[in-house]
Amino acid sequence: MPNLARALGSGGHLLIARAQVPTVTNVNNASILTGVSAATHGISGNRYVGPDGEESELNRPEALRADTILATARQAGVSTLAVTAKEKLRPLISAGGVPAVSAERADDQVANGAGPATAAEVLGEPAPDVYDPALSLYALDLALALSERLGARLVYCSLSDFVAHKAGPGEPLAQSFYGAIDERLGCMLDDGWRVGLVADHGMNAKSGPDGTPNVHYLVDVLEEAGLPARVLAPIADRYVRHHASLGSIAFVYVDDPEALPAARSALAALPGVEAVLDRAAAARAFQLPRDRIGDLVVCADSVTVLGTSAEEIDLEQLSGTLRSHGGLHEQEVPLVICHPLAEDVPSEHDLHNADLYDLLLNRTVS
Amino acid sequence: MPNLARALGSGGHLLIARAQVPTVTNVNNASILTGVSAATHGISGNRYVGPDGEESELNRPEALRADTILATARQAGVSTLAVTAKEKLRPLISAGGVPAVSAERADDQVANGAGPATAAEVLGEPAPDVYDPALSLYALDLALALSERLGARLVYCSLSDFVAHKAGPGEPLAQSFYGAIDERLGCMLDDGWRVGLVADHGMNAKSGPDGTPNVHYLVDVLEEAGLPARVLAPIADRYVRHHASLGSIAFVYVDDPEALPAARSALAALPGVEAVLDRAAAARAFQLPRDRIGDLVVCADSVTVLGTSAEEIDLEQLSGTLRSHGGLHEQEVPLVICHPLAEDVPSEHDLHNADLYDLLLNRTVS
Repeated sequence: MPNLARALGSGGHLLIARAQVPTVTNVNNASILTGVSAATHGISGNRYVGPDGEESELNRPEALRADTILATARQAGVSTLAVTAKEKLRPLISAGGVPAVSAERADDQVANGAGPATAAEVLGEPAPDVYDPALSLYALDLALALSERLGARLVYCSLSDFVAHKAGPGEPLAQSFYGAIDERLGCMLDDGWRVGLVADHGMNAKSGPDGTPNVHYLVDVLEEAGLPARVLAPIADRYVRHHASLGSIAFVYVDDPEALPAARSALAALPGVEAVLDRAAAARAFQLPRDRIGDLVVCADSVTVLGTSAEEIDLEQLSGTLRSHGGLHEQEVPLVICHPLAEDVPSEHDLHNADLYDLLLNRTVS
Repeated sequence: MPNLARALGSGGHLLIARAQVPTVTNVNNASILTGVSAATHGISGNRYVGPDGEESELNRPEALRADTILATARQAGVSTLAVTAKEKLRPLISAGGVPAVSAERADDQVANGAGPATAAEVLGEPAPDVYDPALSLYALDLALALSERLGARLVYCSLSDFVAHKAGPGEPLAQSFYGAIDERLGCMLDDGWRVGLVADHGMNAKSGPDGTPNVHYLVDVLEEAGLPARVLAPIADRYVRHHASLGSIAFVYVDDPEALPAARSALAALPGVEAVLDRAAAARAFQLPRDRIGDLVVCADSVTVLGTSAEEIDLEQLSGTLRSHGGLHEQEVPLVICHPLAEDVPSEHDLHNADLYDLLLNRTVS
């Protein structure tokens, strides 16, 4: 990554920051976009159980309880643009009327203010498949092309973690992917952009030596214990080939409130389960919105994932072994600012990925 | 509390903030004094296991890894003063040469710069006993008298939680105690002080219906499982009548690293244990210094406490039933600013007790 190396060599910073738990896409994109915790912005997972008891994707702009930095800048007259690889994020990043497109749907989406041409037409090539590693590169190319057309001064571009799910650090797929990202970074820096990079979450291998995932199916575990419960996997989304809806955190809703202590014991006894916190403790410990998490929040260790039921999860969806996220062990993320920083930067220990825009907008020195 | 009510009625704010885990005295006093997390300031308990493997009080100024706000202000030429009810805190609050006395030792301590008279002589009355509820009131009186004598412009005064350990909200002892605190608050406000109040941690009853504590002795539990381990209670300090060294969090050091998974299972199986996190997960989840916590961090629910061994803990030390803290359920604390605030205050969900001085110094409007 020669362009990244050049930026770091001339005063840029590579820092380690902390992601919001659950360490999944929607939660942490919301954190980065709003600069606040999930307790404040309200996005507690990729999916949630709503007040009506129905499970749905948690990605509507109305679900956000805090304004995004882009929306606030736009309201102040700054030209903004948000691009995402995955369509599932587009509603969230468009909150407050920010022009937003997804690479996934570039063939039929028009960025607000970018004329009658579709995003794909602006770029001059059709969008890759959602499981194509090139989707993220296409998103970066869209960000470059559309911001020029819109005269955008504040841009957000969210990539897909498909490659990180499928390849470990140093593997050929990862190497070529990051090399291609670095080319786009070079274009941005050459165009005079002020660039920050951060991950929404980390990633860990979740399989045993034989290649099969270390998984507990919590609906099954609780049913066997005579404790009927509903289980929501905050990682679950429409991109099942990434993770088969298996991550290292789960929300449990117990049918009978009296059964809570028994359910807690049954879950805590599972090997690889590190924490079974009740709603109040979890909300405080992880800064989560109390009304959008389970009666119990179950956290697995770094190599274990939690799913709903064996019947519901189709491991065949996984191509290759399982690498996933969602829990406490995917909190550590890199945060790069490609420019010198003023001295009053928070200690790395206290840095969150949600601090990205603050660092970029308020702490860089030119 | 008429003076508090008056302040809140004329633009003051009563907010709910979040304490640092472990929710014990030294950790949170360090947070309030430095404005940063324990991962940065380094104070992970009232006691700790040092690099030499020895257990000791974690209260030396050299143990602090961040400057206190008082020390920084003092270095900038501001006259400062720190007063604590309990002597155990004095070394920490005096970091950076801040004049500091404890009510507990007022009979023979002289505040740096406050002349040859002892603190008790300045006040004109001897210090109360360390288990006397009046100790905290005496500390407030010392803060008032000594800051006048020193011309102090930035003051910290830390009280004892003895009354909160011994009486629940609304009980006569609590009522009269808070009434007496309110009188001192009135004096400060009348003298034109800008005052903020915050708790270092919450407090919960930890006993069953029969009045005996819900306690697990972790050394005993692990010994029975054939897993020799050392256990440190971060709440432990010299004031045993407060809590008998029983709090809702424990650090476990396993003799044989291979035994870690087995130890985790044995601890997770205990009723009332909510989380058994390994060092990495705990450090990230709770923003703790990795080198000053256990191989495992064990968190109990709101009504359960964790101790070392039945042999070591003397429940007779407790006068009355056990009320204690230390865990995830004592994170919620009140934070009061007795003055109007500017609009750019963080959401209550993201407020920490460590934000007190920032709010007071940077966000109040006069």
